[in-house]
Amino acid sequence: MIYLDNNATTPLHPQVKKKIISVLDEYGNPSSAHELGRNVKHLIDEARNNASKFLNCMPEEIIFTASGSEANNTVLKSSIECCGKYNCTNRTDLHIITSRIEHPSIINTLKCMEKNNNIKVTYIPVDQYGIVDPDDVKKAITKNTILISIMYANNEIGTIQPIDEISKIAKEFNIDFHTDIVQAVGKVKLDLKKISVDYCSISGHKIYAPKGIGILYKRKGTKQLCPLISGGHQENSLRAGTENSLGIIALGEAFKQLDIEMDDEIKNITYLRDKLEKGILNNIDNVRVNGHPSKRLPGTLNISFSKIEGESILLRLDMHGIAVSTGSACSTGTLDPSPVIMALNVPAEIAHGSIRFSLGRENTEKDIDFTIEKVKETVDFFRKISPLK
Amino acid sequence: MIYLDNNATTPLHPQVKKKIISVLDEYGNPSSAHELGRNVKHLIDEARNNASKFLNCMPEEIIFTASGSEANNTVLKSSIECCGKYNCTNRTDLHIITSRIEHPSIINTLKCMEKNNNIKVTYIPVDQYGIVDPDDVKKAITKNTILISIMYANNEIGTIQPIDEISKIAKEFNIDFHTDIVQAVGKVKLDLKKISVDYCSISGHKIYAPKGIGILYKRKGTKQLCPLISGGHQENSLRAGTENSLGIIALGEAFKQLDIEMDDEIKNITYLRDKLEKGILNNIDNVRVNGHPSKRLPGTLNISFSKIEGESILLRLDMHGIAVSTGSACSTGTLDPSPVIMALNVPAEIAHGSIRFSLGRENTEKDIDFTIEKVKETVDFFRKISPLK
Repeated sequence: MIYLDNNATTPLHPQVKKKIISVLDEYGNPSSAHELGRNVKHLIDEARNNASKFLNCMPEEIIFTASGSEANNTVLKSSIECCGKYNCTNRTDLHIITSRIEHPSIINTLKCMEKNNNIKVTYIPVDQYGIVDPDDVKKAITKNTILISIMYANNEIGTIQPIDEISKIAKEFNIDFHTDIVQAVGKVKLDLKKISVDYCSISGHKIYAPKGIGILYKRKGTKQLCPLISGGHQENSLRAGTENSLGIIALGEAFKQLDIEMDDEIKNITYLRDKLEKGILNNIDNVRVNGHPSKRLPGTLNISFSKIEGESILLRLDMHGIAVSTGSACSTGTLDPSPVIMALNVPAEIAHGSIRFSLGRENTEKDIDFTIEKVKETVDFFRKISPLK
Repeated sequence: MIYLDNNATTPLHPQVKKKIISVLDEYGNPSSAHELGRNVKHLIDEARNNASKFLNCMPEEIIFTASGSEANNTVLKSSIECCGKYNCTNRTDLHIITSRIEHPSIINTLKCMEKNNNIKVTYIPVDQYGIVDPDDVKKAITKNTILISIMYANNEIGTIQPIDEISKIAKEFNIDFHTDIVQAVGKVKLDLKKISVDYCSISGHKIYAPKGIGILYKRKGTKQLCPLISGGHQENSLRAGTENSLGIIALGEAFKQLDIEMDDEIKNITYLRDKLEKGILNNIDNVRVNGHPSKRLPGTLNISFSKIEGESILLRLDMHGIAVSTGSACSTGTLDPSPVIMALNVPAEIAHGSIRFSLGRENTEKDIDFTIEKVKETVDFFRKISPLK
């Protein structure tokens, strides 16, 4: 199997796998006062340290969640809740700014809040490459704006936003700034001391840790969060429920490995992605690369093949043992073209033929050669029989 | 180590451990259309089937969450949200009924909702054994009551509530009924076809599966839930975020093992718990058993030792290699006596000396003999030096 769907999820790093197996007998509840509990508490502290070292933040700024989606929901829903400087409860004039190409856990949550909480949301458009113009963000700010949430890098097209500029605008207007860095971690140099963000969302299973574990980064000193899940005192009383100790320990190990391998990985993945892109562009007509030519994640290549359905390409490549995606795994199950691709002003009939190749640490040059060959075969096959040709 | 803190968390079942190791390479995203994704989807379906078979419900009534706390939060917070028969949004006269001895993820969430959402909550008192009187529930109902949430069995004292009677009252008044069955699963015969509940909360790590995975049971036909975590379409669009596949698969295996072992386990645990209880009562003066003498979970024994701090007993037993608890692991970190014990009208100075022994599938007769001996030694030791004697 050639796995080119690393933006959807990644295989466990071999060291992460080893770590999981090594701690299966560490079963205490980290809240328990006895030795078995303290042992697990210690392992969790260690994982938190690994994460904070990699991100260059303080361990107490790390809140473990079950997913990036949970982290996103917590920031958005908490922004209008009980606590902090805004005294928001029961106000119905609050305003949030986001972009049109955010993850469903941002877009759908805001749609829900528009309906249930009467908040106003501005969805900033993007240009043909998927880039948000910081000036548009600035113009959208009103006196009621309480939060700006713009993702660092897009999951479908890999476009990297001008987060530094946007965060400075947020700071200038004293508005909380959140960025979903789920796709950026491990693929872009990130230093949370250097970018002026209040909250970030992170997902473990995009960086070779298991599914079911994520992080909400909350800068020290930003307004108190309302826990999405309230109850016990876990995670500094910001996220109740017994800690997913296996997931947390595994994630800590994944960060440790990123620390060692990331630079080489970025080089390798960029080289292979560029090779794949050239191979497809040189061998197949009527294709369009979606996303920014250079401001793009190293491993992401999103291509629209005109006159074919992306779903058909995916299934035929799967028969050849190549795993790719037509868009966000979180949007599967719908036949509409991807809203992200549509936001780039790609005509619907071309958007329908979009395929995302997303590379990871295990891919080799041989994988890419084989993929180029099979993509060509597949596109030729479907174009021959296409009623649209 | 003698582990008598199984109500806080349980070790992994050996078969669960094996299962986890066997699926570490199944890494696809269950939402992905390719083979690797479909394989994981299939494993998740299998786990859902195991859970529904054990609980005697439909697979589609199972929503996987990250914890029992998340399941509890979802039911409570969703009850006042957008959907369903109540048209609740922006109403501030809604009323919920619960008991005084619920888990912190119920009590603290309702306290938060009283403050933020202006709801009214009735906290039904319990008798000296920790039992809720169904008549009290009936009397508390108003025309604005939208939910009754009473736990099946208490985590600290093991008292089992008259859930059947309470659920019938809820049905009579057409009010949604939720019960937290986290502590009851695997220890009490439960048949969701026979009890008239709309929602239940379940936690994996109390039944020999890992931490970080739980279930919200939602009866088919009850009002639509608002997802606590919105975004992708996972879990029938009721809980967004990539599925914790390892946790889910492990939980499915835990249910499979319960199906096989539960009856024998209940017998064994009841026998050992009774032996421990008699051993302590026969050898130590001035002790009080908290909870109901018979309507109690088979493995739970909560005892107050007068004139001693529970914390001291816990730490000295820990030195002897015996793991126990002073109360709910979710309440650790506070020096107040347990609110559950206080709700039984136990005087504070006795409540302070409470210890919970909670037995599990790995305990043996030898464990119990050793524990009786060391509890006596510990109590004698502290009473000799107690300033309160």
